[in-house]
Amino acid sequence: MRIAVTNCNTTPAMTEQIVRGARSAAGPGTLITGHTPDWGPESAEGWLDSYLSAAAVLDLLRRLDGPVDAVVMAGFGEHGREGARELLDVPVVDITEAAAHLACLLGRRFGVVTTLDRTTGQIQDSLHTAGVGQNCAAVVGTGLSVLDLDEDSDRTTSAFVAAGRRAMAAGAEVLVLGCAGMTGLERGVSAALGTPVVDGVGAAVRLAESLVSLGLTTSRVGGYAKPLPKHRTWHPPGAG
Amino acid sequence: MRIAVTNCNTTPAMTEQIVRGARSAAGPGTLITGHTPDWGPESAEGWLDSYLSAAAVLDLLRRLDGPVDAVVMAGFGEHGREGARELLDVPVVDITEAAAHLACLLGRRFGVVTTLDRTTGQIQDSLHTAGVGQNCAAVVGTGLSVLDLDEDSDRTTSAFVAAGRRAMAAGAEVLVLGCAGMTGLERGVSAALGTPVVDGVGAAVRLAESLVSLGLTTSRVGGYAKPLPKHRTWHPPGAG
Amino acid sequence: MRIAVTNCNTTPAMTEQIVRGARSAAGPGTLITGHTPDWGPESAEGWLDSYLSAAAVLDLLRRLDGPVDAVVMAGFGEHGREGARELLDVPVVDITEAAAHLACLLGRRFGVVTTLDRTTGQIQDSLHTAGVGQNCAAVVGTGLSVLDLDEDSDRTTSAFVAAGRRAMAAGAEVLVLGCAGMTGLERGVSAALGTPVVDGVGAAVRLAESLVSLGLTTSRVGGYAKPLPKHRTWHPPGAG
Amino acid sequence: MRIAVTNCNTTPAMTEQIVRGARSAAGPGTLITGHTPDWGPESAEGWLDSYLSAAAVLDLLRRLDGPVDAVVMAGFGEHGREGARELLDVPVVDITEAAAHLACLLGRRFGVVTTLDRTTGQIQDSLHTAGVGQNCAAVVGTGLSVLDLDEDSDRTTSAFVAAGRRAMAAGAEVLVLGCAGMTGLERGVSAALGTPVVDGVGAAVRLAESLVSLGLTTSRVGGYAKPLPKHRTWHPPGAG
Amino acid sequence: MRIAVTNCNTTPAMTEQIVRGARSAAGPGTLITGHTPDWGPESAEGWLDSYLSAAAVLDLLRRLDGPVDAVVMAGFGEHGREGARELLDVPVVDITEAAAHLACLLGRRFGVVTTLDRTTGQIQDSLHTAGVGQNCAAVVGTGLSVLDLDEDSDRTTSAFVAAGRRAMAAGAEVLVLGCAGMTGLERGVSAALGTPVVDGVGAAVRLAESLVSLGLTTSRVGGYAKPLPKHRTWHPPGAG
Amino acid sequence: MRIAVTNCNTTPAMTEQIVRGARSAAGPGTLITGHTPDWGPESAEGWLDSYLSAAAVLDLLRRLDGPVDAVVMAGFGEHGREGARELLDVPVVDITEAAAHLACLLGRRFGVVTTLDRTTGQIQDSLHTAGVGQNCAAVVGTGLSVLDLDEDSDRTTSAFVAAGRRAMAAGAEVLVLGCAGMTGLERGVSAALGTPVVDGVGAAVRLAESLVSLGLTTSRVGGYAKPLPKHRTWHPPGAG
Repeated sequence: MRIAVTNCNTTPAMTEQIVRGARSAAGPGTLITGHTPDWGPESAEGWLDSYLSAAAVLDLLRRLDGPVDAVVMAGFGEHGREGARELLDVPVVDITEAAAHLACLLGRRFGVVTTLDRTTGQIQDSLHTAGVGQNCAAVVGTGLSVLDLDEDSDRTTSAFVAAGRRAMAAGAEVLVLGCAGMTGLERGVSAALGTPVVDGVGAAVRLAESLVSLGLTTSRVGGYAKPLPKHRTWHPPGAG
Repeated sequence: MRIAVTNCNTTPAMTEQIVRGARSAAGPGTLITGHTPDWGPESAEGWLDSYLSAAAVLDLLRRLDGPVDAVVMAGFGEHGREGARELLDVPVVDITEAAAHLACLLGRRFGVVTTLDRTTGQIQDSLHTAGVGQNCAAVVGTGLSVLDLDEDSDRTTSAFVAAGRRAMAAGAEVLVLGCAGMTGLERGVSAALGTPVVDGVGAAVRLAESLVSLGLTTSRVGGYAKPLPKHRTWHPPGAG
Repeated sequence: MRIAVTNCNTTPAMTEQIVRGARSAAGPGTLITGHTPDWGPESAEGWLDSYLSAAAVLDLLRRLDGPVDAVVMAGFGEHGREGARELLDVPVVDITEAAAHLACLLGRRFGVVTTLDRTTGQIQDSLHTAGVGQNCAAVVGTGLSVLDLDEDSDRTTSAFVAAGRRAMAAGAEVLVLGCAGMTGLERGVSAALGTPVVDGVGAAVRLAESLVSLGLTTSRVGGYAKPLPKHRTWHPPGAG
Repeated sequence: MRIAVTNCNTTPAMTEQIVRGARSAAGPGTLITGHTPDWGPESAEGWLDSYLSAAAVLDLLRRLDGPVDAVVMAGFGEHGREGARELLDVPVVDITEAAAHLACLLGRRFGVVTTLDRTTGQIQDSLHTAGVGQNCAAVVGTGLSVLDLDEDSDRTTSAFVAAGRRAMAAGAEVLVLGCAGMTGLERGVSAALGTPVVDGVGAAVRLAESLVSLGLTTSRVGGYAKPLPKHRTWHPPGAG
Repeated sequence: MRIAVTNCNTTPAMTEQIVRGARSAAGPGTLITGHTPDWGPESAEGWLDSYLSAAAVLDLLRRLDGPVDAVVMAGFGEHGREGARELLDVPVVDITEAAAHLACLLGRRFGVVTTLDRTTGQIQDSLHTAGVGQNCAAVVGTGLSVLDLDEDSDRTTSAFVAAGRRAMAAGAEVLVLGCAGMTGLERGVSAALGTPVVDGVGAAVRLAESLVSLGLTTSRVGGYAKPLPKHRTWHPPGAG
Repeated sequence: MRIAVTNCNTTPAMTEQIVRGARSAAGPGTLITGHTPDWGPESAEGWLDSYLSAAAVLDLLRRLDGPVDAVVMAGFGEHGREGARELLDVPVVDITEAAAHLACLLGRRFGVVTTLDRTTGQIQDSLHTAGVGQNCAAVVGTGLSVLDLDEDSDRTTSAFVAAGRRAMAAGAEVLVLGCAGMTGLERGVSAALGTPVVDGVGAAVRLAESLVSLGLTTSRVGGYAKPLPKHRTWHPPGAG
């Protein structure tokens, strides 16, 4: 089975980190390929970045080389998920919803620990529209930006643990890594906090494998029908 | 006061129609300018189109010539609204939310009549995230595509009236034109249905004028803080 | 355009303050008239006052001299709004809902800062039934009564700022003046708090102008149908 | 124990009907007194009537002769409930909420069958603010006005049964008589529909007795604190 | 009238305490009988205990000697309520919902003070499915286990008062005793906190009496239809 | 990896069917063992059956022979899930929630097609408490009992397709098999309806494998803490 994992930003080092996380989670027969959009923001932190990222990732997906069995979208709280479902015949799993789906199985309420406070509203909206916002007790920022995350692992861990405690005080019984750039952090912070911590990248890979192996893919009835054939331009006319 | 009204698709005829609607709604001192994205879909009907449109409209807005006092985003149910709020220092009003805000003042429950059924979910999500979904009794499709709307006015009116009756049977006391391409239809269908019908373009222009004249603009506290300075590429590298 | 603005209590000084706020917000062609109920409570602070005020304001409205184009009801959280919609053929805008509608355009979550804590539940119910409660993060009392508000402007400002900070800590990105008697305070507290502050009186005047200029008025389909002709007595029989 | 039951309109025949229903429901030691407002609407059918009724009933309650142990407010969907709670030291039970409380104990979802369709929104709001709207599957009108109800008992029963079937098709497992003027109808329509039917008047009397016998009354903490001492005028100055 | 009150655990001393509470609440003509399951947990504190208790209580109820007019289930937050409604032709009232129903009549928001924190989620779910969760401001644990409750009355009272203050800080205007083993505590803690406190056992007895005297019982339409005749084994085969 | 799959009723033929479904869904390294409670109902159709089943399944789980890596509870809409999470150190997945989690990934709204109408309320409650009820458009009964399901495959398929169409008319874009006894039906009805159909047994097996392979298990913080040590009796004293 081949699963394409798309970074939502243009930073290749983050794609590599995501791919490492995806591979460590994947089942034996799964081939993970990593993909970096060739335009968009270098990191996604807010609505403007998210919408730019959505278009760039969809542009990447419509030009994907070779067949894949499923797509994992590795932008936590970023937009685009439903567009990819229209575009592709294979299942699409976004790491935001994936982490929440698994977290719901592990505790009655979950919390998300993410990067900057400015992204918390976007994440809440993303959980809500995916149908898994109800049991989210809190979305809490660490104050670290996306590109700060891997510079200093101790600082990242401490910031996560402090924010995780705030989410737990608000009722969370399980935590979710609220950024693809946190992938790999889950075991350390889980041990420090004494509670399960779900990484969305690993969760999404496993959910994508599950859908493929069960022969399930996106419904074409209703909202995720195939895009209508029409004229679409993917970049400014002066640009090319 | 200068209000920039952005079409969400690349069809200039629709921009012209929107500008006509905006000008007929605007107060005496308001200058309306119409803007067509130079890339994106020729019409927005579904999630893929909506995300592509969001990036193209944001690209347009970041390159807007000259100062404006407010921006109206004329894509019903399309994405991008929150990104524009981050990007700009002036108020941003989306026609989806604008129509719903005014509709709430005219009846206890409102309904939206839109183009294709496939877009109803997107519109519901857009109303919800704007905070005005609670009193929406129904979003109903006419079965007409965006570019079909102005070809045959009788057909459009009949389709709207039929769908409007379904929305009213579901509890709507006020209706909303669920597409920027329906602008101008409001009086005819209101007379036919015996109930107020709100056009989002006119509603958004009036709300934008209201915010400007009251000296109000987007909060920078929280989710709509200014975008962080960072590297963003707005088109594929080969393209330009 | 003539807009009648009704105070919800019998204190003429507050009517004057409301009229000043309404006039400073109104467009050039708008004539604002202020109206004080000739019975009811001297200030509305709680459910008993609110219901008494609702009847007195409706009594005032059914006896309004001369034609008006719209009515603004200037009681924050007070009852009566839907009754006025049944009674009148012109649009009716309540300052509670008006402030919330504009606040939703300026931030993802808003907060209300009001007078006494005892009124917060009423305000929450009023926002909910108007369809704009979802994005309200908090309703916070200042501890000041309605008639205390204009006695000492520094005290009022400080109390508002302190309560506003509590609302912002609860997630509000925009604030709303939660009493008609706070009209005029918006610029000062907005500067102190660094966030937009919406005055309901100004918001309602602008929304009323918008509805009138768009040719929109209350739906007669459903809940706001004209009152049935029947015998109604507006005061005790011994009284007159 | 003495329970004062207040009609919400000025029609004495309806007060008599309500008192008959209240007495047939009351426990052996309970003395029911019926009260008719001396001003207000002759029947309450819509928001204007409801707000007028609320003030008239509160005026009645503040002038009640002699001590009572509890008050039952017999207006289905009418306003005023929370004001009476502020005003009085004894428990106050409204028939709308009372019927819903008991209905929740008898089935997973309940429905309300009421008079004119125009009142259904008001009833939904009343259930919501009382905290018992969640399990309401439908509020359905019979098309009969309040004063039509007892003119022709067969017509009333048939209309109720037809509307009850619509509520049951929408998921109701229990029904509620949605007007004080339907009191006495419960057994007949229950037999015809094969499902329990709750009369709000009887339910409210029993709930009021329960609160009194348990030594419980309205909380003074928060929203239902005693009204502040202030100047209130209960009728127009010319009137008396 | 005979009301059977079932303890949810196997501790006879708690049954006795519950029966005392029930008798002190019951009307003059009511005969209360107390029932202890002959299997199940000695106290119910968590989901495992609750499901075990549900089956044991249903086993008790299907074997009840002699006719009863109503059943009160005295396990706060425990499962089984809906099964008893299917099983029996008489009304069934659970103390969790009963306390909430009465609390809604006494204040705009109520709080529950219970035993261990681990049970708070279960109680929230129980209130929600009963249709009375909306106005619950908080469920707060005292940290005392069920069997600790009556060992040291001062300790219990202090723990309740401290937890009650937390619930009131979260918006509760009325409190509910969140364990059948707290029955009898209501007057003391109400005096200490200055707010009404509802005991679920007394509330349920009064609600059961109300239903019986009004001739109301569980609907057989929909979810609470009589159990289908089929083979059911109530204990392991080796066990008997 | 060893996954124990528990039937919720005592019918061995249904356990066999469930095991077949589980094995056809399981990954290569997974050993599925099937377990039938030795007491309880022969089929679970309603609340009484569900609570009896919950206790019997928990009794089975506390006596499970040998270590397992995860447990799948194969009763659609049946109770017990949270009790098993307290009891066991390994992940527990219920087929109700599992099907809903995967369905959310395949369409914007899903529907459940189940056995008898009487069970629909229970299923709605189960989805809600699991946190995945929001996007459920409808739960529809086929009118077939659990034990009728496999007698006549054509009849079952036709009944499912008819009910599935009703769910789709209510907005479902994906369907869920609403009974463990429907396992195996998914491909046929999916083809007939042109929309994905999720079997809860397969979904739960895949989710359980995912949790195990990611090193995740139930949180012990909060509601799913280990059961307290105490005296519990699992059957009537006379019985054994």
